[in-house]
Amino acid sequence: MTGMSRFSLPQDEAFRKLNDSLSFDWRLAPYDVRQSMAHARMLTARGIIPEADGEELQRALAMVATEVEKQRFKFAPKDEDVHMAIERRVTELAGDAGARLHTGRSRNDQVATDMAMFTSEIALTSEETVLDLAQTLLTQAEAHLDWPMPGYTHLQRAQPVYLSHHLLAYTWMLLRDARRFRAAHEAASLLPLGAGALAGVDFDTDRPQVAEDLGFAGLVENSIDAVSNRDFVLDYLAAAATCATHLSRLGAEIVLWSSEEFGFADVSDAWASGSSIMPQKKNPDCAELLRGKAPRVVAHLSALYGVMHGLPLTYNKDMQEDKEHLFDAVDTLALMLAAADGMVATITFNRERLAAASGDELLAATDVADLLVKRGVPFRHAHGVVSSLVREAVSSGRKLSELSEDELRAASPELDGESFYGLLADRAWIESKASRGGTALAAIESQLGYAHAELDRARSDRD
Amino acid sequence: MTGMSRFSLPQDEAFRKLNDSLSFDWRLAPYDVRQSMAHARMLTARGIIPEADGEELQRALAMVATEVEKQRFKFAPKDEDVHMAIERRVTELAGDAGARLHTGRSRNDQVATDMAMFTSEIALTSEETVLDLAQTLLTQAEAHLDWPMPGYTHLQRAQPVYLSHHLLAYTWMLLRDARRFRAAHEAASLLPLGAGALAGVDFDTDRPQVAEDLGFAGLVENSIDAVSNRDFVLDYLAAAATCATHLSRLGAEIVLWSSEEFGFADVSDAWASGSSIMPQKKNPDCAELLRGKAPRVVAHLSALYGVMHGLPLTYNKDMQEDKEHLFDAVDTLALMLAAADGMVATITFNRERLAAASGDELLAATDVADLLVKRGVPFRHAHGVVSSLVREAVSSGRKLSELSEDELRAASPELDGESFYGLLADRAWIESKASRGGTALAAIESQLGYAHAELDRARSDRD
Amino acid sequence: MTGMSRFSLPQDEAFRKLNDSLSFDWRLAPYDVRQSMAHARMLTARGIIPEADGEELQRALAMVATEVEKQRFKFAPKDEDVHMAIERRVTELAGDAGARLHTGRSRNDQVATDMAMFTSEIALTSEETVLDLAQTLLTQAEAHLDWPMPGYTHLQRAQPVYLSHHLLAYTWMLLRDARRFRAAHEAASLLPLGAGALAGVDFDTDRPQVAEDLGFAGLVENSIDAVSNRDFVLDYLAAAATCATHLSRLGAEIVLWSSEEFGFADVSDAWASGSSIMPQKKNPDCAELLRGKAPRVVAHLSALYGVMHGLPLTYNKDMQEDKEHLFDAVDTLALMLAAADGMVATITFNRERLAAASGDELLAATDVADLLVKRGVPFRHAHGVVSSLVREAVSSGRKLSELSEDELRAASPELDGESFYGLLADRAWIESKASRGGTALAAIESQLGYAHAELDRARSDRD
Amino acid sequence: MTGMSRFSLPQDEAFRKLNDSLSFDWRLAPYDVRQSMAHARMLTARGIIPEADGEELQRALAMVATEVEKQRFKFAPKDEDVHMAIERRVTELAGDAGARLHTGRSRNDQVATDMAMFTSEIALTSEETVLDLAQTLLTQAEAHLDWPMPGYTHLQRAQPVYLSHHLLAYTWMLLRDARRFRAAHEAASLLPLGAGALAGVDFDTDRPQVAEDLGFAGLVENSIDAVSNRDFVLDYLAAAATCATHLSRLGAEIVLWSSEEFGFADVSDAWASGSSIMPQKKNPDCAELLRGKAPRVVAHLSALYGVMHGLPLTYNKDMQEDKEHLFDAVDTLALMLAAADGMVATITFNRERLAAASGDELLAATDVADLLVKRGVPFRHAHGVVSSLVREAVSSGRKLSELSEDELRAASPELDGESFYGLLADRAWIESKASRGGTALAAIESQLGYAHAELDRARSDRD
Repeated sequence: MTGMSRFSLPQDEAFRKLNDSLSFDWRLAPYDVRQSMAHARMLTARGIIPEADGEELQRALAMVATEVEKQRFKFAPKDEDVHMAIERRVTELAGDAGARLHTGRSRNDQVATDMAMFTSEIALTSEETVLDLAQTLLTQAEAHLDWPMPGYTHLQRAQPVYLSHHLLAYTWMLLRDARRFRAAHEAASLLPLGAGALAGVDFDTDRPQVAEDLGFAGLVENSIDAVSNRDFVLDYLAAAATCATHLSRLGAEIVLWSSEEFGFADVSDAWASGSSIMPQKKNPDCAELLRGKAPRVVAHLSALYGVMHGLPLTYNKDMQEDKEHLFDAVDTLALMLAAADGMVATITFNRERLAAASGDELLAATDVADLLVKRGVPFRHAHGVVSSLVREAVSSGRKLSELSEDELRAASPELDGESFYGLLADRAWIESKASRGGTALAAIESQLGYAHAELDRARSDRD
Repeated sequence: MTGMSRFSLPQDEAFRKLNDSLSFDWRLAPYDVRQSMAHARMLTARGIIPEADGEELQRALAMVATEVEKQRFKFAPKDEDVHMAIERRVTELAGDAGARLHTGRSRNDQVATDMAMFTSEIALTSEETVLDLAQTLLTQAEAHLDWPMPGYTHLQRAQPVYLSHHLLAYTWMLLRDARRFRAAHEAASLLPLGAGALAGVDFDTDRPQVAEDLGFAGLVENSIDAVSNRDFVLDYLAAAATCATHLSRLGAEIVLWSSEEFGFADVSDAWASGSSIMPQKKNPDCAELLRGKAPRVVAHLSALYGVMHGLPLTYNKDMQEDKEHLFDAVDTLALMLAAADGMVATITFNRERLAAASGDELLAATDVADLLVKRGVPFRHAHGVVSSLVREAVSSGRKLSELSEDELRAASPELDGESFYGLLADRAWIESKASRGGTALAAIESQLGYAHAELDRARSDRD
Repeated sequence: MTGMSRFSLPQDEAFRKLNDSLSFDWRLAPYDVRQSMAHARMLTARGIIPEADGEELQRALAMVATEVEKQRFKFAPKDEDVHMAIERRVTELAGDAGARLHTGRSRNDQVATDMAMFTSEIALTSEETVLDLAQTLLTQAEAHLDWPMPGYTHLQRAQPVYLSHHLLAYTWMLLRDARRFRAAHEAASLLPLGAGALAGVDFDTDRPQVAEDLGFAGLVENSIDAVSNRDFVLDYLAAAATCATHLSRLGAEIVLWSSEEFGFADVSDAWASGSSIMPQKKNPDCAELLRGKAPRVVAHLSALYGVMHGLPLTYNKDMQEDKEHLFDAVDTLALMLAAADGMVATITFNRERLAAASGDELLAATDVADLLVKRGVPFRHAHGVVSSLVREAVSSGRKLSELSEDELRAASPELDGESFYGLLADRAWIESKASRGGTALAAIESQLGYAHAELDRARSDRD
Repeated sequence: MTGMSRFSLPQDEAFRKLNDSLSFDWRLAPYDVRQSMAHARMLTARGIIPEADGEELQRALAMVATEVEKQRFKFAPKDEDVHMAIERRVTELAGDAGARLHTGRSRNDQVATDMAMFTSEIALTSEETVLDLAQTLLTQAEAHLDWPMPGYTHLQRAQPVYLSHHLLAYTWMLLRDARRFRAAHEAASLLPLGAGALAGVDFDTDRPQVAEDLGFAGLVENSIDAVSNRDFVLDYLAAAATCATHLSRLGAEIVLWSSEEFGFADVSDAWASGSSIMPQKKNPDCAELLRGKAPRVVAHLSALYGVMHGLPLTYNKDMQEDKEHLFDAVDTLALMLAAADGMVATITFNRERLAAASGDELLAATDVADLLVKRGVPFRHAHGVVSSLVREAVSSGRKLSELSEDELRAASPELDGESFYGLLADRAWIESKASRGGTALAAIESQLGYAHAELDRARSDRD
């Protein structure tokens, strides 16, 4: 703030560039105006500034709000941040009343309050968008309820599951993300304003009134903490990093499924790109970007930890860096969620390819072992028996069902051909996983009920 | 699991070294034993394994528990992880009953359950330790209630505060940390066990019984999610990273305060080191390490995000990396918290140095401006008036109180000598910050009440 | 590339937003134009496109270059990246000749080449700017050659040094940074172009000609590697992260030195900020931002590692993320270096405060121990003797020179008062560090010679 | 160093635990002993310690070296780091001569020197191991010279390449890694010793002699920089992070290729794991861990940046954290490289599956477009023509070769059936990529020559 300081020299241009924050903190303008309105109302109510000046301030702030909204706000060369730009403009509009606006307030508590307002609001928006995507995945799960596909561990086919079951796994991840965004919202819901520069103020202010006016749930009870703290930004960034990492897994799977080798899914043309040189290509760029953008969000989190690392209390200029890290994380995640939602809603699955892949007899191996267990063979022995059968089948290039009854009996006296071939023929093993949370249809139907209930609960919390 | 697999070749030694997890996952042994006990009880109750075998298993598992506790457990060359080592030993002790232990369970849901049990428990421990440190800081605040010191912004003296107020800022940070550890505990409180490899199991298990037996609050309702999810580890690591970053700020301040230039604090000899070459040195190594270890905890968080990035569902071997990142973060944070607690409890402050530094008349500048505001001068003008007085005083090498009445009046007609010199002489400006959350004694006393209440609330939640 | 693809549906708007890169990759436009000029020259020289079309292309590309330079280039709604925008415009200007430009080239090798050109060039710019700052620090060192100050370890005064010696430490760091930027330049100096989409091209191209035309030192010899590789970006980012971390140390020291407690340095008003509320404040914002921006550069490096992690060959859309990470790192570092240079060039040091702090008799403790060593006392015993003297002096509130001769003799028979008091009185201990690389003036003068030579060498390499 | 300090209180146990470094810095013992030998030789040669004591020290240090090597070294309770443990033992063995060992040296320059020696040596080891893996990949490339496989972009089949060409891409990555390790070796090749605590020493030492004795290439010319600098560790970690990221790509591809869907490769049983529950599973754990361990190495790099961030000069205790980050990165990378080498050397590829996948006619699309180009159609138009043919074929469920001549002519008058069907029938399009660096056999043979030459050059640099 050169213009008002004790300094004799103007700021160097290279310093102004480094120091300038208006290019990015302008995004806080609507919050800064609302904050100033509440602050001015309180100052007036407490008699700290004259009634008439209070009215003048509301009028001027309302005009600024309009200018901001309509993108008609004009910057002056000396506007170094959003706070100074708005106060300068208010003073142009309201004269001496404008010069009273900063009474009992400092840029330190002001910027902390803007950031809390922004984070609090954006966290709710993120929560809502995340719930929308959870719903879209749930809807797709319902639409593909009984489509068998291979479940994988280590990217090796392991046991068959229904596609609905696989998609619902993402719904549950997103429901957890929603909780994290809600927690970040709550972390941002204590009002810093009133802390002044760091020590409180020597006016008889009414912080609870301002909190209520701005929709905060409570107050930061220590003025030093109020201006030193950016935990709520870290909370938002951690929620965003985890959510982005979930989306990177979804994206990676869609990339896999879109390969010719898997051939499980086909992204809509509206969500794919071509090649500049290979006319046959249809690339799942959107899914790749879901994957490729997650490290960016994680990096913003690490960076803010780096900024706060070892900083003495209270406010240090380093903390200005909180904004760009937060804003880019917010925007990146919003793009990712919108794109994931659109891509998932329009993706088509290839029932035949999924079914063929899940029909691999080897996926029944666990069920064969369990059959032996049910006949009294200890599980570890049963596992050994079936391993040797698999080794025999694989090394001789046969399917399991092509093993002879003699081979079966040699492996284990409990293993008769009838049950063995029957189990393989029925392909019943997907429906055998009927335990709670398992992939049998009845279990999925219960799960859908739990997921709907959780979504409803999350949404009703928002009202 | 070479021994039981379909493979013909033994594992290569270099692979075994890369793959081996026993050296670190042995830490999960007590959880693995408790889990197996609960699992075996449920299998017996449901008639999945014979009653007699169930009893045999409990007996063998109890013996293993004792061997683990007494550090008498003997490893075998083929033990590649904690789960195999324990199952191998149980089978040695219980024969065929041991071979039944893994019925209806996979290493995938087993390790997820061990990790959830460990994280759930350690998160409560971290919460408790964090509350202890919050209490220690609060106790020190009460012991230094009215010791003035300079408050800083940008590491420049800004306004005086009481040392108690400054120390309480850390109490509030730690109270927030406690909430985060509690949330991580809750995130880890849904039981994965029963998910099998990924699809559920084909035995008629009773997951709610196991959950209740092990103290879980509920179930993971999707078996794929159960084995793919490590969100709760990320939650713990994020809580730990934020807490460690708070401690890095505390450490950095103690380093500063211990310098000859500040001279505000003296770490007890029991918490300091000497120099190998400079006999006069007393180094605040503990405080430096509080600062220097925070990036390590943050790095563990980033690393786990990196591990999970783009991983297709369900379990992939990459996820084995969750353990070392978590364990080292847990141990590092525990060391940091214990050391911070001991160092803070025994640190001594230098009342004279603090008071002298806070007595700087320039720290009254805001109060002079506010004096003018109370006489009707708009704040921004008052700020300008005082800035010019400061410039005049600094450039002429005088204190503010050495400015003449003529100079005061020239700066502003509202500025009479009596009030001006009086304000500076009274040194009352620290007590003027009487707003809620401010540094005036009355405000701090209210704040202490809030902090006590919050500590009590956090602790009663633990019962 | 919807327009030219096999697709029937237009891209979804949310996808376009996620996918769009024009907003940031436009920065590559000058490189893309130069690359296309060289590519077209080669195609013409090899007879792959007609001579007349070749001329038409050069004419059109020159016009585009001018439009880019004068910021008169007009974008079309379908321009999704810089490459398509320029090719579209060239085709508007040159008709069918424009449609021949992409012959024997793919966006994959094209973008890798643009990135290599940009990185190669910016690395040299960074090297130069780093050398300029190294020179500025060296100049300040020469201007403060014999100004004593305390040297610190653990932020405790340890031994006195000359300010020149301390400033030169940064010169050496920056000289190392310059080497790293040079290595990044070299890493980017192999031409990817000619790799086509991934497999090479089926035209008889002349890659060495293009390399020479564009100033590359050689060729990437594997077409798959050419389009999969972003190592050179990682190299630049690592160099930038280390350099930014060096600047963070410089910034942190200037913040410390600017505090009232240290009082060693005064940042010029042109490089400082005031406070919105505290009229007396002069804040070293520039130094704080040198510190606060380093984690951002480090985060860009981590993020790109995250992007490349586990990516199958060859090009994946994730790699589009390389650009924003690189560009912001480049811009952030450029701002930091320019600001550091200006701030360091104009900073003033306080000779008296530095001298007073370095005059602390305790800083002579090592020299007293060394005095005993020179009289035959083993170092470790001498260290013990002096430690006990320091303990005695500190606990009794005396200076070392206030210890009595009896106390000295009691501590060690080799310690006579004459040498002891003489050593303390002479304050000669700063000049005693005459070993190579040490702080004695003669040693610093040699060091200045080495530093000048290294700077000269680094600069002559640039010619 | 409690024992020798000015302190009256013993160190607190919690502090000792936090502060202790012996558990990890013991790894530096061999370097510390060699350093002490060289230091003692120099002290003796310069007459700073008596000849007899010098001999005594060499004798004692040789004994310690043996104790260290044979793991017979006994620790004492007060040994807080490797340096004190060794000096303590030397003094036990050599009496007063031992107490002279630390003359003209500080732990600050001592530890910097140990770290430089270790890093310098390990960087050469890493370089060698990396070259070995580059050679193994080259050998596998030669063994699979003409095996066609699909080349991918966006994980979509794009153009066919030879497997050799794909494997060689990794050889080139590793050759770049080798250069980075060599640069890290060079960065660690300047001797810090002789800097003392920070200011140089007041003995007439001979640093060039020590440098030559220990194999350093030169001296750190500024004593403050010598003890403040850890750039060479950052350089090693950056090289390791990039190398690990390369291995993560290799690991990810092997995971993909091992899936049933791709079926391109089969990891030897010696490099795979089974499942605890699914008898049919063969999991590519080693490849997964190559992927999963890369973020850990990257995290160590970020963490050390975090440690150094904003640290005032010179030595701060935070810097003790450099060791664990470096050591774990070294060990992790060594495990990864050894495992990658063994796995790659024994992996088998499935020629039929690779060939079948690369035979996809759509991969010829670029060649069809290029055919038109060679007949004078501008590339962009040719691309459009082939796109429409692909759309027609895909939507009607036909291969390209099943399109009728009428359809061809309708798409473009230049497209006659003879050339079109011929081109598809010949499957010649892999050999068409004959440009330098391309996948045609002749081009690969040239490339092999370049790769051999580069390997030879890298190895001869080592002699």
